[in-house]
This record gives sequence, structure tokens and C-alpha cells, in this order.
Amino acid sequence: MEEKNLQVVVIGGVACGPKAAARIKRLNPEAQVTIIEKGELLSYAGCGLPFYISGQIHDYKELMCTSTGVVRDTHYFKMVKDITVYNKTLAESIDRKNKTVKAVEISTGKSFELKYDKLVLATGGEPVIPPIKGIDLKGVNFLSTVEDARKIRDQEMYLKGKHAVIIGGGLIGIEVTESFVRQGMKVTLIEKMDRVLPALLDTEIAYHVHNELQANGVNLILNDSVVSINGDDQGNVKSVTTQNTQIPADLVLIAIGTKPNVKLAKEAGLTIGPTGAIAVNELLQTSDTDIYAGGDCVENKNVINGKPIFAPMGSTANKHGRVIADNICGRKSIFKGVLGTAICKVFNMNIARTGLTEKQAKDGGYDFITILNPAPDRAHYHPDAKLIIIKLIVDKKKRNILGAQIVGPGDVAKRIDVIANTICTGATIDDIVSSDLAYAPPFSPALDNVIVAAHIAQNKIDGITKSISPIEVKSKIDNNEDFILLDVRSPQEYEQIRIDDPRVVLIPLGKLRESLDKLNKNKEIIAFCKISLRGYEAQRILEGAGFAHGKFLDGGVICWPYKKIINE
Amino acid sequence: MEEKNLQVVVIGGVACGPKAAARIKRLNPEAQVTIIEKGELLSYAGCGLPFYISGQIHDYKELMCTSTGVVRDTHYFKMVKDITVYNKTLAESIDRKNKTVKAVEISTGKSFELKYDKLVLATGGEPVIPPIKGIDLKGVNFLSTVEDARKIRDQEMYLKGKHAVIIGGGLIGIEVTESFVRQGMKVTLIEKMDRVLPALLDTEIAYHVHNELQANGVNLILNDSVVSINGDDQGNVKSVTTQNTQIPADLVLIAIGTKPNVKLAKEAGLTIGPTGAIAVNELLQTSDTDIYAGGDCVENKNVINGKPIFAPMGSTANKHGRVIADNICGRKSIFKGVLGTAICKVFNMNIARTGLTEKQAKDGGYDFITILNPAPDRAHYHPDAKLIIIKLIVDKKKRNILGAQIVGPGDVAKRIDVIANTICTGATIDDIVSSDLAYAPPFSPALDNVIVAAHIAQNKIDGITKSISPIEVKSKIDNNEDFILLDVRSPQEYEQIRIDDPRVVLIPLGKLRESLDKLNKNKEIIAFCKISLRGYEAQRILEGAGFAHGKFLDGGVICWPYKKIINE
Repeated sequence: MEEKNLQVVVIGGVACGPKAAARIKRLNPEAQVTIIEKGELLSYAGCGLPFYISGQIHDYKELMCTSTGVVRDTHYFKMVKDITVYNKTLAESIDRKNKTVKAVEISTGKSFELKYDKLVLATGGEPVIPPIKGIDLKGVNFLSTVEDARKIRDQEMYLKGKHAVIIGGGLIGIEVTESFVRQGMKVTLIEKMDRVLPALLDTEIAYHVHNELQANGVNLILNDSVVSINGDDQGNVKSVTTQNTQIPADLVLIAIGTKPNVKLAKEAGLTIGPTGAIAVNELLQTSDTDIYAGGDCVENKNVINGKPIFAPMGSTANKHGRVIADNICGRKSIFKGVLGTAICKVFNMNIARTGLTEKQAKDGGYDFITILNPAPDRAHYHPDAKLIIIKLIVDKKKRNILGAQIVGPGDVAKRIDVIANTICTGATIDDIVSSDLAYAPPFSPALDNVIVAAHIAQNKIDGITKSISPIEVKSKIDNNEDFILLDVRSPQEYEQIRIDDPRVVLIPLGKLRESLDKLNKNKEIIAFCKISLRGYEAQRILEGAGFAHGKFLDGGVICWPYKKIINE
Repeated sequence: MEEKNLQVVVIGGVACGPKAAARIKRLNPEAQVTIIEKGELLSYAGCGLPFYISGQIHDYKELMCTSTGVVRDTHYFKMVKDITVYNKTLAESIDRKNKTVKAVEISTGKSFELKYDKLVLATGGEPVIPPIKGIDLKGVNFLSTVEDARKIRDQEMYLKGKHAVIIGGGLIGIEVTESFVRQGMKVTLIEKMDRVLPALLDTEIAYHVHNELQANGVNLILNDSVVSINGDDQGNVKSVTTQNTQIPADLVLIAIGTKPNVKLAKEAGLTIGPTGAIAVNELLQTSDTDIYAGGDCVENKNVINGKPIFAPMGSTANKHGRVIADNICGRKSIFKGVLGTAICKVFNMNIARTGLTEKQAKDGGYDFITILNPAPDRAHYHPDAKLIIIKLIVDKKKRNILGAQIVGPGDVAKRIDVIANTICTGATIDDIVSSDLAYAPPFSPALDNVIVAAHIAQNKIDGITKSISPIEVKSKIDNNEDFILLDVRSPQEYEQIRIDDPRVVLIPLGKLRESLDKLNKNKEIIAFCKISLRGYEAQRILEGAGFAHGKFLDGGVICWPYKKIINE
């Protein structure tokens, strides 16, 4: 297994590359391992950059340390790992026939060749650059490398009270929004779709992120595209023009997406997949079996539907590194794919998702139901309890979870991990309900939110409950349909906040049994409460009393993402 | 499926009982459902009692509310759920032949009979009462019901600065320790075994709980049993005498365990299992198929080994309630069993566990390895990152997790849930490493602690790493064996804290390759660092250099539960 004098060249020194290199040396101490990295810095935590920009991390070097505080520089790699690193060095081309890489030292222009038995491409990703005017102005930034982050940090100190414009409401845009607000800037976030994180969240979940952004003073502009970025005589950015408006700007961050860096692979004739990233098999071999690739430059298999997906993520890059090392060292190891799991935090809102969105499930032809479960994240009487809302998208026949989205100030991370883990093991909602998850009041309700969500899904698929999603109700309203929105909360709750629609009728649940004669038995009645637990009880009471068209509203008032009257 | 006029009697109104009753009414609104409860209060959160005692929950009624603040009293059950409740009523006997329950109203002594088609026993548990002198003294308490908690709360207000003694270091004892400290009492905790939570944790994990208790001023007494509780002339408790000492006591809590309340079941001739709890099949039927039982009065199947286990838990009781309701209403539903998952918090330490302990695995004849993974719970550079230590017990051949214990100030809840979920789905450590868990710096390291723990286990089982547990090293020390404890940290780290043993040799990892000639190639060398990541590197370097007996110490200095020299 430990081939003597195996020569391995790794191109890319951030996440997948160093991980692969280090494990190769551990598995085969005789191997000669070399890393080529175009930047100065190695093995740094790219995902930590927004927290450096926010000021929560004071020194960018912390992003390059081991957890015990040792900086992973070229010296560290040589002394500790016996790995040779050429940093500030560009890999220019791959000669697959002679198995060599041509590299050039950036500062001197000196070029040299490295022989390889196995080559690892970990060339990462790079920001998508939009074809608009003004991206070269001073004060216009991208965020991909430590150098980018240091440049932004240098500008920030002069910009307290000034205007920052972020173009793109994806993960980086959302995270940096909070960073800029923390630095005292007035922030505008522009997203061309009707919601932030459009590839990751459905409408009724994104709604809560919008509220949180606006509650923290962010000027959120949706459904609008940037036409140009405008500067002054000195070439400093001054404003951003969209199709609908113009916004003052002293700093601009363009974060419309990441694309894989595939130049080297393409020029070497390696197969590029349908997503535009390097195609690899489950051993993470490229179309050349002596060349492996991992991290943000490759496409993955979506575990749900088996289709290629480009989902760059630091966690995946590290897993890739380990799988590549194992295979290079003769320990067969398979990378099973990803779900597109993602998590982020903006102000006091935690946002997580995995698998397919409702739209993706629909486009994929799945026969599914959706449910919403808004509930406290721990025993509701515990002082630390906070709301989280779980949306599940569940296959009706196979009863497996196709996708999940969770949002709220409470602990969403635990729940998305249990769900992602469930999907990865091939388990169904019927398995989740038996899962012996840990319960104590400071940590979860007696029945964890995920288990209750699975219960709700079972009830809906099995026809025990009849419920309807906010999106479906909204479309009925838009079609001017005649039905009753039956609010079964208390008059006090009704006074505080209610759905703004003339169809709303208030009958508190405790009075429903004695008030049934006030309701038309033949009309469609959609019951709801704050979270629709009482709404569900109401639906069962209606059904028991012979009402033919009783339903409840998924998620109740809390999850209603449309017009509400609020008196708080 | 909806049998008309089905008569269901439920005995027990706390967790499983009301859950079963409510779902039966939802599945079959025509059913006549009656609950008999001996206490006044219904459907309360027994697990919340320590947080009421601590003062974190101000009004005990909060423990009886729905999450929207509605008190679940007899009126609520009637009006909202159409369920008749007889509270302050004792179920005296079951006539299985005539299918009736005889009950008596406690205040009046009036008795009556209820007919049933299906009967649900949810009679709960009760505290184990030790056979010692003085348990009837004023100031001696148990904690099982809201009434118990109110009694303790009434005493607390006079006891600031006074002495509380807790007998029993189980879950309740540990939780109430913090409650009493929060109330300003001087607390002594007495546990007869060598560690707290002895049925739940192994030595090297319990060690950290001991440190946390002592750091918060708790007088922790281990390996000692209470002989008597002593009072004054007025019958007030004054002290506790153990085999080794005497401790002043103004308040005593006895928390040596919970036993199932099986009196009614036993007298009715139902089968009692080997654990002393009611035996049920996977439909939760007792030996009489018309009588179901659930909650703290029944025994469960341990998912790991298929054996009966008594593991009373509010989460399980709620799951039972739902399964019972489904089966009574003709919807076949199976309860798959439990893992004995538990979690608790004491001061700033979170403690969680699932499955078998190392001792249980050994006693069960399993061929297993153990690993320790101490690491920050999120990206180490994130300001919220805190330590957690994961111990895994993994079957060598099947590669499934037999048990896990996690301790630390960081997020243990998420990790125990992912592990418990993995075990419940039948997945292995090789499945976990592929799990697409959510990553962002405020939530987890790039490779989540659970994935890294699985990697460590893979390495150990596959022979890539050779490591040794603290417990094994301690036994070598106790046997006066000759070996080297190779500390590969920096001199600064060594100065701050180190293992107190003459076998310790310090060679920082960066200098190891050039210092190999200082080490005897034939001696056993056990390398370690703070967490044993560098220890692992050191072991690989030694192996690469031809050392025959290199190992690393699982978990490093952080996990070493024996003598350390500390200069902080």
C-alpha cells in the first residue's frame, strides 16, 4: 500500500489541496508531496472571511492557524508535514503525456517543471464578474481570497456612516451584509430575484430573512438588476444604478456567485461537466485516472436525484481531500455526493437548508407534499427557547425527505444536521419519528422539532390531516375564491396580529364546538392559529362534525408571508 | 378505521397518557376518551421541574401550558379535545374480564367504575426510596411531581447560604445541583460510585463533569454511601452521615433513581419484564392485547443489543403516546426502541450520551475500539467556539457506533443527535463521514466534530493510526511499565499544563524529525499534544522512521483525566 517514492503534485493550497497532501504523507510517509499555490497564504479558512470583515476576527492570520494557534505557512508544512510548498507560484500547464506540471514563480518569472505520478487539482473557485460598467472603480470589491478581505478591511475604517452596496443576495452577500452593518455602514442589498438566497430557499422561508434584514436597517431591494456602477473623476465609486433606482455607494461588493476555476483542467483536455466544473467519478478521478480533482473546482453528485450539482463548500472540499489521499495511497474510498446543505446567520436569524427546494422538486417531477412546523427550539417554558420554522418537502410514495429549510432565531443547525444525516443514510420520515434524539428542556422540546415535522408530514401524506400551504392559499385569494379563513386563536392574539383578508372569521378553539352552527358546512374552511396546532384541532373538529371541506393552514399566522395587520 | 363509540380509558395524565388521549380523539373524533389522574395537575413537563426549582421558571403553571400559553386543565381537555378528565382520582384496580377500571375520587372517597374497550396504562415512575434512617424528617425531599417541586421551592427561600445535600449523582441530582447553587445554597453532592452519572458515562468523560461541579463550589463526594439522615428535636433535618464523614444539611434531596409504577399492572396480572417495568411488545401492548402501556412505567428495547432497558424519558413517553393512539385506532404503528440517549447541562458544561458505555460494551462481549476527539465546536477562529470532547465506542467488524459520550461547554446537543440518528438508521462510521452536514464558521468546523470522530475511528480500526486510551495508559503506569510519554507541544504549552509523570519527554513536533536520535527505537513511545492531532503526526513520523512501538494518546492532555501539573 505504501508505494515508495510516489511523487504527488497538488495544485491549490487552500482547503482540499493541503488536506489531501497531509493525509497522503500520513498514509505514505515515503511519498514526495509538493503543493503549488498561486497566493501567498496557505490552508486558510475562506469561509471565515466575512467574520474578519465584520471585525469579529481581529487578525487574518487567525484564519490560517491550526486550532492550537500554529500558523500553517510553508515552513510549517516542511517541518511538520515534510511537504514542499511553492507559494506565490502559478501552475501554468499540465503535460499529461510526460506527467509533468509547468509552474512559474510569480515574483521572478522563473519557471520550472515538476514530475508527478499522481496529480491533484484543487484550483478552487472564483467570483463571477458581471458584464456591467464600473467594476474597475476604486471601492468595488469581490470576496474570494484573504487578499480581497484585507482590501475591504482597509477601506472599512474610513466608511463608518457611509454607504455600502452589496450586489447579490446569496450566502456571501447575506453574511457580508451583517459584517458591513457591524462596521457602521448603511447597507443596501440588491438581489435580482424576488427573494434572497433564491437558489436555496422558497418564498415563505426567505420572507423571514427579509424581515430580519429590514429590522436591522438594511435597504433590501428585490426584483431589480444593477445596470452600472458609477464613479467620480478620481475613479472612486459613488453610486450604483439599477433598472429602477440609483443608490449612493462608497463601497460596493459584488457577490453574484462563484464559478469553478477550470482553466488548467480545460487546457489539459480534462472533461468538464454540465455545470461547468471539472467532472470526476466517485473516486474523485478526472477523465485522466492519474489526475484527481476536488474542492470548489469540481462538480458533485446530488445525493437526492443523482444529477451533477455545483455546490462549492469548505466542508466538501475537506472531505474531497481525504478521499483523494486515500485513493492515491491505494485505500479505495468513495465520495457519495452532496445535498447542497448550507447554513448561515444574519443578525439574530439562523438559516439552513438541504436537498431540493419546492421549485426544484416540482421541476424534477416529484410527487411530494410540503409542511411547515413553527415551534420553540427547546421546552417552550425554558428561558432560552426561541422560534424555529421547519419546512419539509417529502416524497409522497417513498416517504423520504427531498428537501428541508429551517429559519429562525433558535437552533436550526442541529435540526438541519439531523435531517441531512437522515437523507444521507437513505432513511424516511417513518424512521425519523423513532430516532432517540436527546431531550432535556435546555436543548429541545420533549418531541424534537424534526420529529414533530415528520409527524406532520406523516399525517398529511396519510390523509389524517388536510392542510394547505400559504402559497396555495395566496393563489386562491388572488383568484378571488370564496372560502372562510377560520382564525381559532383568542381575541387578544387576534388583536395583536392577524391575516389581513376579509375572509377571516374569529372563533376561539375553546368555543368552536358550540359555534359550529355559525359556519356554512358546504364552504371550504381553512382553519389556523398562531402555529396551526389549534388549527389542526379545529380541522379535526370540523371533520368530526361533518364539514366536508375543512383544512388547516400550514404554519399558521407565524408562517404567513403575506399581508398581516400588526398592533404590537 | 374510525370505530364508533370506542371507549378508551387512560390511566395517567402527565405525558404519555394525554398524548395518547389527544391523538385518539384526532384520529377518531367519535371515541369516548377518559383520563384518570391521581394528582391535581395534568399534562405537565416533569423534566422542567429542576428549572422551576432553580428560579429560571417563575410559575409552575408555565410547565402545564401549551406553547401558546394555554393552561391544559380539565376544562381545556373537555372544551378543546372533548376528553373527560378525572383528576385527583386514583385508579384502584382493573377487572380485565369485565373490562372495567375501578377508580376512587381521592378527596371524597367516592368510587366508580369505567368501562373500556381499550385501556392505556401511563402510570409513570416514582422515586426509589433508600432504606436509611431519617428520610421522613422535615427538609428531606424527593423530586417527581410538581407538588414535590413546589414543596422544595417553598423551603428554598429560607435557605440562602445554608447547606443542601443531594444524595445521588444521576441526571436529576446533577440538574438540581445547579438549581440549588443558583438559589444561593452550599451544595454537597454524594454519589456512591467513583463518578457522577455512572450508568451513563465512562470515567474519562465524567472527569470533566467533576471539574465543572468543583469549579462551581460544589462539595463532590464520590465512593461514599449515606448511612443516615439526622434531625433535631423538632424533626428538622440537620446533617447527613456517610460511611466516611458527616455533612451539615438544612435541605436534603434524595435522587438515587426512578422506578416504574407497576402496582396496578402487577395486580391485574400483566407481565412485568426483567427490568421490573411493564413488558410491552413493539405495538406497546401489554400481555393483555386490549391494554396498552407507555411512558415511564414500561421497559423498552435497546436498539443496540435488543435487550430490555428501563430508560424513563419524556421524549420516549410522548412517542409512546402517539404509537399507542395509532394502534388503538387501527393504524399499525411500531415503537422501535431506544438507545438510552440522555443530555443535561450543569453550569457551563453540556453532557450528552447515547448507546452503550465502554463498560457495557465490554460486558456485552463486543469487539470494539474507543476514540476521543477533543476539538472546538465551531471554526476555531470564531469568537463563539468552545471545546467539546467526543468519545465513540465503535464495533470493529460491523463498524457501527455502539455508544457515544460528549462533554464540554460547546454544542454537544447537535452532535449527540446526529450520532443517535445514525445509530437508529443502522448506518456506520463509513456512512457518517459522507454525511453532508451544514457548515459555516458560526456553527461548526469545516469538518464537523462527528465526522472527524468517525475519521479517527476509521483510522484506528483500519490500523492507520495506533493509539491508546488514557485508561489503558494509566493501567501501564500503575503496573510500573517502562515507556516514553512523548509530549510534542511547545515549551510554553508544556509550562502551562502537563501530565505529571516522570516518563514525560518534551520534543516539539517541529523539531521531532531532527531529534529522532534522542529516542530509543525499541521502546514503546506514546506521543501526545494538547488534543493529539500533533500526537498523531508524531506517531506517523516515528513509524516512518522505523520506530516499532509508536502510538499516540487518545485525546491528548485535554482528555487526560489523571494527575496534571497546572500553572495558569
